[in-house]
Amino acid sequence: MRTIVSLDIGGTQLRAAVYKQDQREPIAQKKIKTRAGEPDTIGRLFQLIEDVLPPDGKVDAIGASCPGPVDPHTGIIMFTPNIKEWRDFPFTAKLMKHFGVPTYVDNDANLAGLAEWKFGAGRGHHHVLYLTVSTGVGGGVIINDRLLQGSHGLAAELGHTTVQVDGPLCGCGQRGHLESFSSGTGIERFVADQLTAGRVSVLHPEKKNSAHDISEAAKQGDELSIEAYQIAGKYLGIGVANFLHVFDPSIVIFGGGVSQSGPLLFDSFETSLKEHVIHPRYLEGLVIARAELGDNSGLLGARALAELKLDL
Amino acid sequence: MRTIVSLDIGGTQLRAAVYKQDQREPIAQKKIKTRAGEPDTIGRLFQLIEDVLPPDGKVDAIGASCPGPVDPHTGIIMFTPNIKEWRDFPFTAKLMKHFGVPTYVDNDANLAGLAEWKFGAGRGHHHVLYLTVSTGVGGGVIINDRLLQGSHGLAAELGHTTVQVDGPLCGCGQRGHLESFSSGTGIERFVADQLTAGRVSVLHPEKKNSAHDISEAAKQGDELSIEAYQIAGKYLGIGVANFLHVFDPSIVIFGGGVSQSGPLLFDSFETSLKEHVIHPRYLEGLVIARAELGDNSGLLGARALAELKLDL
Repeated sequence: MRTIVSLDIGGTQLRAAVYKQDQREPIAQKKIKTRAGEPDTIGRLFQLIEDVLPPDGKVDAIGASCPGPVDPHTGIIMFTPNIKEWRDFPFTAKLMKHFGVPTYVDNDANLAGLAEWKFGAGRGHHHVLYLTVSTGVGGGVIINDRLLQGSHGLAAELGHTTVQVDGPLCGCGQRGHLESFSSGTGIERFVADQLTAGRVSVLHPEKKNSAHDISEAAKQGDELSIEAYQIAGKYLGIGVANFLHVFDPSIVIFGGGVSQSGPLLFDSFETSLKEHVIHPRYLEGLVIARAELGDNSGLLGARALAELKLDL
Repeated sequence: MRTIVSLDIGGTQLRAAVYKQDQREPIAQKKIKTRAGEPDTIGRLFQLIEDVLPPDGKVDAIGASCPGPVDPHTGIIMFTPNIKEWRDFPFTAKLMKHFGVPTYVDNDANLAGLAEWKFGAGRGHHHVLYLTVSTGVGGGVIINDRLLQGSHGLAAELGHTTVQVDGPLCGCGQRGHLESFSSGTGIERFVADQLTAGRVSVLHPEKKNSAHDISEAAKQGDELSIEAYQIAGKYLGIGVANFLHVFDPSIVIFGGGVSQSGPLLFDSFETSLKEHVIHPRYLEGLVIARAELGDNSGLLGARALAELKLDL
C-alpha cells in the first residue's frame, strides 16, 4: 500500500503529513513555524519530515505545495514568501538526495485546485476551474482530469490577465488585471482612493482599511463599502466569463477569504457572469461552488500531485 | 493500415480526402461547392464521400472540420455559415448511420491548431497556442499533447475574451473582446470610425475599406492605416500575454489572412507582448511562428482528430 509524505510550505507554517493510499485522514502530521529570515529552513524541513515518517521509514513519494512561482518540471522554487534563502532553490533535488524517493512540487493555487478536484467540491468533474480570491487572485485548472501546468510550469496565473487596459495597478506592476479589481488588495485600493477623493463613508480615510473591515462596514449599510464589493464582483464575473470561453469547465470553485463574502460579492458576480457569457450553453449544468478543503488544501493537493505522478 | 476520410465543411466549398496512415498526402480527394441555401447538403456530402472512397470501401473513421459552434462530444453542429438547414444538426450520427464507421467533428480553429501541432509549425511541441486572425479571432489549444475541448466542447474561444470592459462592439454582441480590436473587422471598424470623425487619409470615407485595402494604404504610408494595424497589434500582444499566463505554451502559431500583414501588425504586437508579460520566463524559448498548412489545415486537422480518437 502506497505511502505519501505531503508538505505544505507556507509563509507562517511548515506542515507535513503522511497519507496511506485509500485513507482520507493522515496517519501522522506535524507543523512548525516557518520563522521568516532564519537560515537552514531545509534542515528544519528534513527534521519535520523525519518526525512524521512511519516506523519502517518506507515512503513512495513526497509531494509539496508552495506559494510563489515554482517550476514543477525541474522542481525549482523561484522564490517563496518569508523564506529568503530559497531563491531559484533546487527544492525537489535536495529532498530526493536526502530521502531517496521521487519528489514533486507545484504552487499552492494549482494544488488547491487539484485537491478540490480529487477530494473536494470538484469530485467527479473532468474540467475544473478553481479560483482563490484573497490578497491576490490565483488559479488552478484541471482539463481532462489533468492539472494544467504549462511548458515552464507557469500556467493558470489567472489573476494576471488584463480585463481593462490601463486599469488600476496590480501587485505585479501591470495594470488592469483581474486581480487589480477583484482581490482583497483591489477592494482596499478602491476604497482608499475614494476616501482620499473625499467620499463619505463610515470608514476612516487615514486608517488602513482591510477587505474585512470593508465587508463589515458594507454589512452595516456603508454605500462605499457595498460599491467596492459590487465592483469586485462585476469584474470577477467578467474574468470568469473569459475563463468559461477559454476552458469551458463544468464547475467553478471559489476559495480564499474574499470569496467568503457571500451575496455582497456574489450577487454582482452572478449578474455580470450572465451578462458577459457569449452563449448560454456555457452555463448549462455549470456548478458554482465554494471550496471544501480549507486549510488542508495544500497538504491534500501535494498528496494528489504525488499520487498522479506515480500513476503516470 | 488505417484509412481515414477527412472532411472540410466550408461556407463556400465542401472538401473530402482519404488518408492512409503514415502518408502525408491523400490517396484521393475531391471538392464541390457548398451552394448556400440549397437543400440536402448532407446527401451531396454523402455522394462526395462515396466518390473518394477506396475501391474496397474500407474506412476506419471519418473526421470533419466545420466553422461555427460544434459540440464535439455529441457530434451536433449548432450552426455553420451558409448551410441553413444545419441547425442543431446531428452531424456525426447521420454519417455513422450511413457509413457505419466512427465519426468525429470539431470546429475549424480547434482543428487548425491540432493540424499545426501534428503536421505543421507546432510539431514536437506539447503546449501549443494557435490563433487565427482574419475576419474574427479564433483559437486552438494543445495542452500535454491533447486538444482543449472543454465540458460542452466550447473551449478555446480566445477571440471572445474581454481585454477592455466597455471597449468596441464585437461581432458576438459583447464589448471589448480581443476580436473587437485585432480582427480584420476590428481594423475596418477603427478606420471607418476615424474617417467618419473627419480624419484625413488616402482611404475614402464613403467606401467600405477592407482590412486588405487598409494594409495596402499603410504600405503607401497612410498614417491612419498604419495606426489601425498598430492598435490591432498592441491588443493582440495584450491578448497573447493573457494566454501565456493562462496556458504557458512553448509555441504561438498565427494563421488567418490578417496575420500575413508582417511588421505592420507584428512590430507593435511584439513590443506589446514583451510589455505585458508578468515574468520574462514565459518568453524563454517561446517560438512565435506562422501557420504552415494553409488551406489544408481543415482536412489535416480533421484527419488528426480521427487518428487521436482512434488511439484513445
